[in-house]
Amino acid sequence: MNKNIRPLRPVWLTRDRKIVKIIDQRRLPHECEIVDLCSVNDVVTAIRDMYVRGAPLIGVTGAYGMYLAVLDCFESRIPKDYLIRQADRLKSARPTAVNLVWAVDQVLDAVLKVSARQEKILAALEAVDRIVDAEIENCRQIGRHGLQLIERISREKKGKTVNILTHCNAGWLACVEYGTATAPIYAAYDKGLEVHVWVDETRPLNQGARLTAWELGRHGVPHTVITDNAGGHLMQHGRVDIVIVGGDRTTRTGDAANKIGTYLKALAARDNDIPFYVALPSSTFDWSLTDGVRQIPIEERDSDEVRYVQGMCGGKTVRVLVPPLNSPAAEFAFDVTPARLITGFITEKGVCCADADDIRRLFPDASV
Amino acid sequence: MNKNIRPLRPVWLTRDRKIVKIIDQRRLPHECEIVDLCSVNDVVTAIRDMYVRGAPLIGVTGAYGMYLAVLDCFESRIPKDYLIRQADRLKSARPTAVNLVWAVDQVLDAVLKVSARQEKILAALEAVDRIVDAEIENCRQIGRHGLQLIERISREKKGKTVNILTHCNAGWLACVEYGTATAPIYAAYDKGLEVHVWVDETRPLNQGARLTAWELGRHGVPHTVITDNAGGHLMQHGRVDIVIVGGDRTTRTGDAANKIGTYLKALAARDNDIPFYVALPSSTFDWSLTDGVRQIPIEERDSDEVRYVQGMCGGKTVRVLVPPLNSPAAEFAFDVTPARLITGFITEKGVCCADADDIRRLFPDASV
Repeated sequence: MNKNIRPLRPVWLTRDRKIVKIIDQRRLPHECEIVDLCSVNDVVTAIRDMYVRGAPLIGVTGAYGMYLAVLDCFESRIPKDYLIRQADRLKSARPTAVNLVWAVDQVLDAVLKVSARQEKILAALEAVDRIVDAEIENCRQIGRHGLQLIERISREKKGKTVNILTHCNAGWLACVEYGTATAPIYAAYDKGLEVHVWVDETRPLNQGARLTAWELGRHGVPHTVITDNAGGHLMQHGRVDIVIVGGDRTTRTGDAANKIGTYLKALAARDNDIPFYVALPSSTFDWSLTDGVRQIPIEERDSDEVRYVQGMCGGKTVRVLVPPLNSPAAEFAFDVTPARLITGFITEKGVCCADADDIRRLFPDASV
Repeated sequence: MNKNIRPLRPVWLTRDRKIVKIIDQRRLPHECEIVDLCSVNDVVTAIRDMYVRGAPLIGVTGAYGMYLAVLDCFESRIPKDYLIRQADRLKSARPTAVNLVWAVDQVLDAVLKVSARQEKILAALEAVDRIVDAEIENCRQIGRHGLQLIERISREKKGKTVNILTHCNAGWLACVEYGTATAPIYAAYDKGLEVHVWVDETRPLNQGARLTAWELGRHGVPHTVITDNAGGHLMQHGRVDIVIVGGDRTTRTGDAANKIGTYLKALAARDNDIPFYVALPSSTFDWSLTDGVRQIPIEERDSDEVRYVQGMCGGKTVRVLVPPLNSPAAEFAFDVTPARLITGFITEKGVCCADADDIRRLFPDASV
């Protein structure tokens, strides 16, 4: 493991195409550690234990996992049921992220279309590259479309600072490049607009405080870390102009599952007439779902993720226990924001309202 | 300092009436340390640096501070301007809590009515005792009235567990005995009703995870610590029957300032038709105010309270830095929940709606 290298992507393949490298995001921001993934097992662990997180990155890492599944099998004709079994293992590593299922299936389909081992390896690699390139291009386009929303507010405020609130990390650390929710922010900053980001710390795993703040700081974007409790107060006092968050799974009717607490921010945005946007690639849409609150399963994770908080103390990354040792805790990882609270989606194809018809307008070919 | 003593009140006077003792609540739940307050300076420090917190307890501690001010002055005729100056110092130790101003003024008024030093000491002591006794009786009555709300839900659920969500700590640690928001919970539990409490951890200072969980655990009340982000999700899924929080300052029209994040829970409760109650003694009403969001000043505190999290690591209480060292942070201590989102107030005089007329009905004699 190489410490403190600063890669520009959160996941990549070594030049010899044998090892997948990732940033272990559990240790950011105080350590930037690179981890080797050499097998499906490694990939499942990395996804399940959140070395990598964020819907697009989980998908891309799962796709690399499918590539490793092919690479790891030395039979000249790799059995179909072996591949399906590996795909199932990868797909079940995180229950909520629809991108994971989508990306793994993309590689699986490509691999099943050809016969010989060497052909399968090449097909897997090509499928992974297509997914990676598409994710990057999607984020670039999300940035382009979202930029227009920020530009409009900047014009309305006559160039005064646009205050953007975001929850969790939907940055390049969650994708491959640019990010989803951060793409419009980076685009606006790079264009010279005055922007400032309120970064929800995003308990329990503090992806906002740890990852989004780290990303924005590296890029030079002015930002302030706040508790998840603070957004409503800031909105009441006119200190938030727009909310942009990412999405983990979205129904075709516009209900959006995202990091726990997103729903509360959407309620506050609505109560204060502040635009609330979800930035996502269309792979995040689950075209089979119509009722997010009822149909999207919400992952319950180890309660120690709530009870312990990780941070730097005396030059080391350690975990501290906050509540009494004997108090039970519960962790719910996501919540669902109903479409009625969402101003719109920022997608790679443009911005649309959070209703079935307008989503369908942008993606007429999506299969339900 | 005596470690790990378990007092039944968070503040008390020594038998010789010379020293005020408090639990240093900053170190709970992993250490229970008792601290001596011997002067107005000590009291200002204890209030400002949040050794003690919670509107009623801040008031009581401020009242004790005024008693110490009298005790500390050895002139036979204690100058009026000295007393007013000490009162002002105490009153400005925390800007939001209206109880502090109220309680300090109660003692000041009593002291100014008499002349000789010994008379002043006795008058101060009597005034403090009146405040303490009244706080205890208020909380007992709040428990009695709030119990009826829980009993009604318990009947509707045919005895199944009543799930109560609370934010921050409005327990006996914030008062003297019983607590405000917790008083109905303790009363219900003691009466044998099945109750379970969702305890918002309450960032940044984690008063829920540290203090409310500690209190409830000591009393045997079933509870689960959750992140501040989780309440909306639980409400969407029918897992919260009632929300009961405390209040720090309330307008005569029913807008309630309480710990930051309360507003978000009130929005979620309204969105899911869940009753949302603020439990408070009437001393928390600021009869001069009509618009909470505009008129109640919200304390901004040291951003390190957001950046660092305190907990137990290796048998010691330590603080860990969560975001990158160079990322700015901001701490807003309270927010205001507009009356329109509040189902009602649970006061010592009974339950009322969150509107000027119904509040006035319970407290017809309050001076505006």
